[in-house]
Amino acid sequence: MGRWEPDAAGRLREAAMALYAERGYDGTTVAEIADRAGVTARTFFRHFADKREVLFAGSELLQEHMVAALAAAPSDATPMTAMTTAVLASADFFDDIRREYSRRRAAVITSTPELRERELIKMATLTTALTEGLLARGVPPDIAALAAETGVAVFRVAFERWINAPDDVPIIDVLQTTLKNLAGLT
Amino acid sequence: MGRWEPDAAGRLREAAMALYAERGYDGTTVAEIADRAGVTARTFFRHFADKREVLFAGSELLQEHMVAALAAAPSDATPMTAMTTAVLASADFFDDIRREYSRRRAAVITSTPELRERELIKMATLTTALTEGLLARGVPPDIAALAAETGVAVFRVAFERWINAPDDVPIIDVLQTTLKNLAGLT
Repeated sequence: MGRWEPDAAGRLREAAMALYAERGYDGTTVAEIADRAGVTARTFFRHFADKREVLFAGSELLQEHMVAALAAAPSDATPMTAMTTAVLASADFFDDIRREYSRRRAAVITSTPELRERELIKMATLTTALTEGLLARGVPPDIAALAAETGVAVFRVAFERWINAPDDVPIIDVLQTTLKNLAGLT
Repeated sequence: MGRWEPDAAGRLREAAMALYAERGYDGTTVAEIADRAGVTARTFFRHFADKREVLFAGSELLQEHMVAALAAAPSDATPMTAMTTAVLASADFFDDIRREYSRRRAAVITSTPELRERELIKMATLTTALTEGLLARGVPPDIAALAAETGVAVFRVAFERWINAPDDVPIIDVLQTTLKNLAGLT
């Protein structure tokens, strides 16, 4: 304790997820999460603001990554092509190891209204960040907002489908199918 | 007081909106809203569960109306055509008189995190209801979720644009432009 903990954040995340599944989110304390992970509460708070943020710290990284991909798209790309680059970049985050974690995380979130709200806020924040990214590319405001909303809609639908898909289906395939479905819809 | 009040709900809504603008949402009580509207608190509670619901009671009516329009679309309509019917039906709710109310409502919601969250929840509930409506039409789950998310995205972007548009632009025009923009994007 007190010394440097290799991957303490990863162990805290695992411990939190196990406890949320066993006792429910509301019935779990930070002290119990730290204890299960074999670290002190102080170490917990070095990594996460509270027990909710254990579940949402990844959302900010995902957002930064998608916004960076959007900014890196060729300057002559159409708004939707640039948005597609950002949507497909989300696949870097969700490999097969992450799928099982994502499934358990989704189960906890679905069963807790406070967390469902938090997830909606994170998605709204992602939409705003992508809208701003499109505006920075010179896309007109109405088109930027629509392309960002549509891109996040594709991500949400694909992500939900992926966590319910068989284990050998990579998220990139589901994202591409969903983008194709969108083109077919409109 | 105590007797039947013609359009008490409308007056309560107006009173609430005026007070939220003057004192802020958090600084306003149900008693003050009832007093300003010239009714008793008991009358308030006959119409609204709490001061938040004054702002959101309309969301349920909008949802019912859009879901009914979706169900009434011709049975051979494509998922997106049916969804478009539902999206355009929202225009029945937002005439020119409603615009000023909608603008003031949006200002209150934007300035209060609790209300922003509530609005996100209402939009997520609308998306779920429209997804279910598409499923009932025999649309496959992945397509239903995507079409519903996309339809709600169009509604949100158009609504936001409409409340910021000049007074002579009807919402139906903005909805149609936004649907055209969507088709152009993808």
